[in-house]
Amino acid sequence: MASKTPVGFIGLGNMGSPMAKNLLRHGYPVIATDVFPESCKELQDEGAQILDSPAEVADKADRIITMLPSSPNVIEVYTGPNGILKKVKKGTLLIDSSTIDPSVSKEMALAAEKMGAVFMDAPVSGGVGAASLAKLTFMVGGVEEEYTAAQELLTCMGANVVYCGQVGTGQAAKICNNMLLAIGMIGTAETMNLGIRLGLDPKLLAQILNMSSGRCWSSDSYNPVPGVMEGVPSGNNYQGGFGTTLMAKDLGLAQHTATNTKTPVPLGSLAHQIYRVMCARGYANKDFSSVFQFLREQEEEPEKKGD
Amino acid sequence: MASKTPVGFIGLGNMGSPMAKNLLRHGYPVIATDVFPESCKELQDEGAQILDSPAEVADKADRIITMLPSSPNVIEVYTGPNGILKKVKKGTLLIDSSTIDPSVSKEMALAAEKMGAVFMDAPVSGGVGAASLAKLTFMVGGVEEEYTAAQELLTCMGANVVYCGQVGTGQAAKICNNMLLAIGMIGTAETMNLGIRLGLDPKLLAQILNMSSGRCWSSDSYNPVPGVMEGVPSGNNYQGGFGTTLMAKDLGLAQHTATNTKTPVPLGSLAHQIYRVMCARGYANKDFSSVFQFLREQEEEPEKKGD
Amino acid sequence: MASKTPVGFIGLGNMGSPMAKNLLRHGYPVIATDVFPESCKELQDEGAQILDSPAEVADKADRIITMLPSSPNVIEVYTGPNGILKKVKKGTLLIDSSTIDPSVSKEMALAAEKMGAVFMDAPVSGGVGAASLAKLTFMVGGVEEEYTAAQELLTCMGANVVYCGQVGTGQAAKICNNMLLAIGMIGTAETMNLGIRLGLDPKLLAQILNMSSGRCWSSDSYNPVPGVMEGVPSGNNYQGGFGTTLMAKDLGLAQHTATNTKTPVPLGSLAHQIYRVMCARGYANKDFSSVFQFLREQEEEPEKKGD
Amino acid sequence: MASKTPVGFIGLGNMGSPMAKNLLRHGYPVIATDVFPESCKELQDEGAQILDSPAEVADKADRIITMLPSSPNVIEVYTGPNGILKKVKKGTLLIDSSTIDPSVSKEMALAAEKMGAVFMDAPVSGGVGAASLAKLTFMVGGVEEEYTAAQELLTCMGANVVYCGQVGTGQAAKICNNMLLAIGMIGTAETMNLGIRLGLDPKLLAQILNMSSGRCWSSDSYNPVPGVMEGVPSGNNYQGGFGTTLMAKDLGLAQHTATNTKTPVPLGSLAHQIYRVMCARGYANKDFSSVFQFLREQEEEPEKKGD
Repeated sequence: MASKTPVGFIGLGNMGSPMAKNLLRHGYPVIATDVFPESCKELQDEGAQILDSPAEVADKADRIITMLPSSPNVIEVYTGPNGILKKVKKGTLLIDSSTIDPSVSKEMALAAEKMGAVFMDAPVSGGVGAASLAKLTFMVGGVEEEYTAAQELLTCMGANVVYCGQVGTGQAAKICNNMLLAIGMIGTAETMNLGIRLGLDPKLLAQILNMSSGRCWSSDSYNPVPGVMEGVPSGNNYQGGFGTTLMAKDLGLAQHTATNTKTPVPLGSLAHQIYRVMCARGYANKDFSSVFQFLREQEEEPEKKGD
Repeated sequence: MASKTPVGFIGLGNMGSPMAKNLLRHGYPVIATDVFPESCKELQDEGAQILDSPAEVADKADRIITMLPSSPNVIEVYTGPNGILKKVKKGTLLIDSSTIDPSVSKEMALAAEKMGAVFMDAPVSGGVGAASLAKLTFMVGGVEEEYTAAQELLTCMGANVVYCGQVGTGQAAKICNNMLLAIGMIGTAETMNLGIRLGLDPKLLAQILNMSSGRCWSSDSYNPVPGVMEGVPSGNNYQGGFGTTLMAKDLGLAQHTATNTKTPVPLGSLAHQIYRVMCARGYANKDFSSVFQFLREQEEEPEKKGD
Repeated sequence: MASKTPVGFIGLGNMGSPMAKNLLRHGYPVIATDVFPESCKELQDEGAQILDSPAEVADKADRIITMLPSSPNVIEVYTGPNGILKKVKKGTLLIDSSTIDPSVSKEMALAAEKMGAVFMDAPVSGGVGAASLAKLTFMVGGVEEEYTAAQELLTCMGANVVYCGQVGTGQAAKICNNMLLAIGMIGTAETMNLGIRLGLDPKLLAQILNMSSGRCWSSDSYNPVPGVMEGVPSGNNYQGGFGTTLMAKDLGLAQHTATNTKTPVPLGSLAHQIYRVMCARGYANKDFSSVFQFLREQEEEPEKKGD
Repeated sequence: MASKTPVGFIGLGNMGSPMAKNLLRHGYPVIATDVFPESCKELQDEGAQILDSPAEVADKADRIITMLPSSPNVIEVYTGPNGILKKVKKGTLLIDSSTIDPSVSKEMALAAEKMGAVFMDAPVSGGVGAASLAKLTFMVGGVEEEYTAAQELLTCMGANVVYCGQVGTGQAAKICNNMLLAIGMIGTAETMNLGIRLGLDPKLLAQILNMSSGRCWSSDSYNPVPGVMEGVPSGNNYQGGFGTTLMAKDLGLAQHTATNTKTPVPLGSLAHQIYRVMCARGYANKDFSSVFQFLREQEEEPEKKGD
């Protein structure tokens, strides 16, 4: 254990923090930084060394993981005035687990290459719970020769690590999965709602779909109708889970890449719009399966209460 | 076996003909009719008795199965001048396996009830192949007390028989399943196309989706991208399978019932429109997974012919 | 004036009542009926004769106008047990101003023809205000020879009367106009909202659109953004005007006819879905231009966390 | 005339070339450059001085107009290694008439400001014909104090110049107009097609819409149905006009800005997808009103010809 070289970790949010802790648990010294001091403090208490900027982390570690909210943060952390690339050492392995536009991943990879470093994109699927339990799935893009090195670290934080191809394909896989997920979820919500209005029992309808060609993950593993399944957000007033605002963000990325590559995505595009309207109508922080609630008839006018 | 009472069968098309043959195979005398003499002839050769009209069939059989293309045909066969209800006997069990508007099923049930007969809707999933192999799934709506009697016949023609509830719920289940199927198929086609354009290998992408939350029947059992799976229409130039025009018909039913019940079905509605445009653009007779081909870039301009 | 023969009027709702009054004003004796006694009473006070059923009206008048909420009402009033056709006289002119499915208009025309009567469809555009002021537009379908006779009555109630062609084309014109209206309204709402978020002044944006190719009735005559125009529902908290639920009904008709004629209407279909969701989310009774409010960011969360 | 100071012009394509000629016609010496030598040669013959790069133009002219295909070209021409900002003089007025993402306009304005220059966005509406006849409409964004100086040049090339507000609002106005235009055009195409299938004469239907609330620029000034109007692309096999691929590009910009500002644009988004599918299906170079042809039933299968 003592011989393990330190790993840099930048971005200690809801996802990054448990990921970094899993590296510590596996015996890796962690050198971390974040813009929020309290996030740093928490990880310091777990044994990590805290530095002031990505550049300083790059000066001390030759393997660095970044986990950031969006493309502009990634650009700043890599190429900003105190960014990683200001002090990155030759041969450093840079793994970005943020979910961002694949074209930004490619830009970062080019910029890293100019400094003699290697950049890989490795976005995750699975939420905060999976991050804590080291059950994430990593979808990895980058030069194949470096994949084994990346895998060593990623397996400490996840249960599945999938090599997807050249830089950007990890993001592509993540974005594609989430677009199809959103389509399946809205489709399931519409279908369940229609069936219920036509007189079908929701549990029975779910059962029929799940043994037929309508089956999908949203119908059989995350059903959006309260009471159909246990242990999913629909059973808990759509709390927890994967927020509508996060889904809208991922669909925005899908839309951007589709527009840039001139790819028609009619249902993906409409799914994006529906989640966007939901964000505007007060559903931003509910689980994305709350689209069932959004589409069904409002039971009573909230204004009508009292007189 | 000799004691089995005859079963009436009306509608000997691509689906009805193999279904009736399976009844014969199980030892049921079959009394049948169809508007096309050649269809009648073929079943006669297998041992069925052929009569001239639905009314005559109703005069001879007290269990009748109908398998017809659309709502107007069902209305005609039941309530037309030579229809079943003209000569139906009290206590007759009428099972309609056509895929039609559930509100028409309810009308037929009411009309049958007036004559002392019992009507059930029992549409199928599974195509011509499943019909031949007696592997259909029946979704049955109607009074529960009659379900056992219906089941006896339906199990001769199908592998699964599911009781869905009151009259019309069989149709509802069928329509709901096919709407979600269409959404999943178009979603899968868009997603695979986007992933491919972003540099992902199609087989790998399908594999990633299928182990993730994007998974659906269209991605894991009927993938629309040529070369990803074997034994599906995408590997055979989209021949065979379930035609775009049939899917458009079912989505039209879903749209009608959604409009009538004031249920919002945004993705189902767009899926309907997409299949409708495909029918207008020459895809009517291809398998519905050809939406992948419809959405992807045309490889060469057909106008280039000549010089 | 005294020589004018009586006109039958069936359906004395928000629209029918002022229409019938305009006939009285023009000196026509009116023989009317409605399912609501209070509506009958009101018209009786204005000088109309009230009878008990459509059949009785048909017995007394050889020109009859119907103004009813939807297709089933029309079917009942014409072909029901106390319907017009039970006692209609040969040569009677039947004018239906309801907005219904054109295929129902055709059915009614056929049924009327069998009794020797003539049926025309003549739906209106313009709301309650236009009905009171006799400023409606009538779109008329039916045999051309009868058009002049119809026109004589319709000009008492409207400012424009347009002959559209065979039976059903009046409905077709109405439905087509309202579908394009809905598309233009939602399009205008999205566009104005986008422009405002991009920093444009709403009045200036409306002005630019209205002098450019984005111009439409919803942008230049009924702008959905509060403050851009005076005298429109957007300036009055979306009260008055044409309710979302009525627009959803007309879009449902458009969808039905499009589905039945296998016509792709992608934007019309999505417009239908949007108004349908709005009905489910509490906008049913607001003017249809309230889609601007529906799409824009909710200004404050109703939950107001804690204190 | 002799006293007029030279104007720089960068981008001599289909639009830029006639615009630059109009400046020459008004007596402005023009100093120009373009990546295509033949475009330069043509303008040289008209009297312009040709230089090798944007930087050199910036060295000689203190008012510069740019007219380029897309955002990356604009970024290159302004901030690239031989870009305008390499040699721009303090106080130079930079006017960009390209149609690009408003956020890129803002970036360019910031970069110009750092060099002491002033950047304005001034995209145009109107095509090549309007450019030749100096009938363009300019929508101008930028600091108000500089607007008069810009107006002096723009009025030589256009009939309308509209001040829209801060930098980027010119682009915003252009993008908004074209999004609503696309929605109106597809809506008109669907509506006309539906009406025709319901038995309405296309000219009559257009007339009814144009006197009613369905009226829009696409119905009354650019009707997509062949034979309804003269002098529009629908009468000329959809040749000329505004290409589908250009509309798809503008809708892509609208989508980008909507996604970035989290603005729901459901119909705009679907319009984008429809034009994107049309590009994939062979309509890229037809006028955007060819969506009517795309949506209507294919008259005969092209494969069926001969045998």
